[in-house]
Amino acid sequence: MASRSIRLAVIPGDGIGPEVVAEGLKVLEAVAPSSDLAFEQTSYDLGAARWHRTGETLPDSVLEELRGQDVILLGAVGDPSVPSGTLERGLLLRTRFELDHYVNLRPVKLFPGVKTPLADVTPDDIDMVVVREGTEGPYTGVGGVLRKGTPHEVATQESVNTAFGVERVVRYAFEVAASRPRKKLTLVHKDNVLTFAGDLYQRVMKQVGAEYPQVSTNYCHVDAATMFFVGQPQRFDVVVTDNLFGDIITDIGAAIAGGIGLAASGNVNPDRTAPSMFEPVHGSAPDIAGQGKADPTATILSVAMLLDHIGAGDAARRVEQAVSDDLAERGALGTRSTAQIGDAIAKRVSG
Amino acid sequence: MASRSIRLAVIPGDGIGPEVVAEGLKVLEAVAPSSDLAFEQTSYDLGAARWHRTGETLPDSVLEELRGQDVILLGAVGDPSVPSGTLERGLLLRTRFELDHYVNLRPVKLFPGVKTPLADVTPDDIDMVVVREGTEGPYTGVGGVLRKGTPHEVATQESVNTAFGVERVVRYAFEVAASRPRKKLTLVHKDNVLTFAGDLYQRVMKQVGAEYPQVSTNYCHVDAATMFFVGQPQRFDVVVTDNLFGDIITDIGAAIAGGIGLAASGNVNPDRTAPSMFEPVHGSAPDIAGQGKADPTATILSVAMLLDHIGAGDAARRVEQAVSDDLAERGALGTRSTAQIGDAIAKRVSG
Ligand SMILES: CC(C)[C@H](C(=O)O)[C@@H](O)C(=O)O
Ligand SMILES: CC(C)[C@H](C(=O)O)[C@@H](O)C(=O)O
Repeated sequence: MASRSIRLAVIPGDGIGPEVVAEGLKVLEAVAPSSDLAFEQTSYDLGAARWHRTGETLPDSVLEELRGQDVILLGAVGDPSVPSGTLERGLLLRTRFELDHYVNLRPVKLFPGVKTPLADVTPDDIDMVVVREGTEGPYTGVGGVLRKGTPHEVATQESVNTAFGVERVVRYAFEVAASRPRKKLTLVHKDNVLTFAGDLYQRVMKQVGAEYPQVSTNYCHVDAATMFFVGQPQRFDVVVTDNLFGDIITDIGAAIAGGIGLAASGNVNPDRTAPSMFEPVHGSAPDIAGQGKADPTATILSVAMLLDHIGAGDAARRVEQAVSDDLAERGALGTRSTAQIGDAIAKRVSG
Repeated sequence: MASRSIRLAVIPGDGIGPEVVAEGLKVLEAVAPSSDLAFEQTSYDLGAARWHRTGETLPDSVLEELRGQDVILLGAVGDPSVPSGTLERGLLLRTRFELDHYVNLRPVKLFPGVKTPLADVTPDDIDMVVVREGTEGPYTGVGGVLRKGTPHEVATQESVNTAFGVERVVRYAFEVAASRPRKKLTLVHKDNVLTFAGDLYQRVMKQVGAEYPQVSTNYCHVDAATMFFVGQPQRFDVVVTDNLFGDIITDIGAAIAGGIGLAASGNVNPDRTAPSMFEPVHGSAPDIAGQGKADPTATILSVAMLLDHIGAGDAARRVEQAVSDDLAERGALGTRSTAQIGDAIAKRVSG
């Protein structure tokens, strides 16, 4: 049988990005043949080095090339030598916004055998999916500065929320909730303070919820939600929230589920008008770059999400199972390098 | 010796507010005589009941009366029967803004004997103070809604940050840091995304920091900070942050330090141009109101902060010590009612 060809854009990025991406690709290549998939890879040199060399973050021509791909795998971008925000806004967020990644999908799942900083929790207690809005809210970049550097400086940031943008992400979250055994969707916001945006989310939840009578819904203020993540993570099944709240709570999610080394994510364009992008939640961690110390597991789990997105659910399940098996044995295995972990997981999926 | 008279405004509020405030006042009355303090109390009927009766949240005349007081003790406001935001914006935030409570002071401290949801931490690991900005940022209420209820609705919320507002809270945080043994101040923000506001905070940190060479400073993105609160709380001594990030991280702080039943706070006007207000971080918890189940400890610790603010440091230390002793024995004492806990602590301070 002829294999299905997938155009895969790879953005290794900065710091540990290239190392973890190499392991992600290793696992992808290992699982591909048995699912009759063939990946046509194109690697894009984007990140701190390019910025230093050319001043470019994401040239328009590269963005257009990315649009022509089927799917994107990203390692991490950011380096202390680049002014804060330059690569984040100019490359990462620009990609999310331009490719209309309106769903930022972030599972929070404690795998058996993984050490959590929480006492008294088991894998059954931590199994949720956060659906973070990805293209509006406080991330728009709208705002500015007046009288900079004077005692009368005013700096503003505007959270922009639209019925169009909120409706589509809330609908996606209902779909995810409807597909899960518990069928429970929690809106996380701060509607008692951010009354305009909070009210919009609340009304959309009610409207769209009417189409999903099988899904139970509730609401939790973001501050309380962080507390419950730590104290009662069982409360959550699917969470829908805005771009900034989602950023914050998924890092707590990562912390309780065993650390940022395991947290995967997908920047998803559910309408498929442009390629989706999968990436570990962790950053470029320049302090440990190039030492083979980075944990590639988050990237490998992001590869599983990528496989799901392109309709290769079987392959995705195999990668997840391999990761789960690897994690279950980790305690007994001692310290392994980035490549050793990648090798072990690749071997399991091809075995 | 004639005792010093303090005009104390009391706002019991909604839900468990009146119950916990009663215990706070019990302890205050118990500690007052030995510090030669006499409290002239005025109780203000504000909250859900008044809103239902009169439609008022905080009438101008009451606000003017509050201005004439020396200090305020607040229980909690909010009730599900009142539209979300009405009392929060109209009463609580209005008071904070009008009385210029630009420092929202929130200690995060694990007392010996208190159960934390974190494995492997001891009281030495969790001892920080969060200095949350209280009068600007995303809490201004600036923003609005266009085409409400239509598919073209746009809802905005604006974070407004001024050099004036940031400088004064950062300066206060440096003073707090300079007074503590570790002398370490961490700015928590999201300057890689909220570039205008983040840059203002960063520049002010550098400027003001030049006057405090004895204080070491660093920076942490809010998402990473939440992770470190759970995984490495030892990292933090004093934290300064904006109004919304402060709201969120202090709830995680409460969670790791034994729960919201113990978290105290002060809404402080350091310039003393208006009375400061002390309140437990928890809300009105209508589900357990009137049952004697609420833990008054957060209110009693807020009373200790109130005593510090009015210059009665000795009395403050005695209340804290009494709380600490009570907490150390709690495990052995079984369930006690709100009043029993208040009685026990009051007895210790007057003993
Ligand atoms: C690097 C940063 C811009 C990014 C974000 O805030 O979204 C990151 O924290 C994430 O969660 O993917
Ligand atoms: C009730 C609410 C408006 C308030 C806030 O957001 O500041 C509360 O959460 C707090 O932390 O004091």
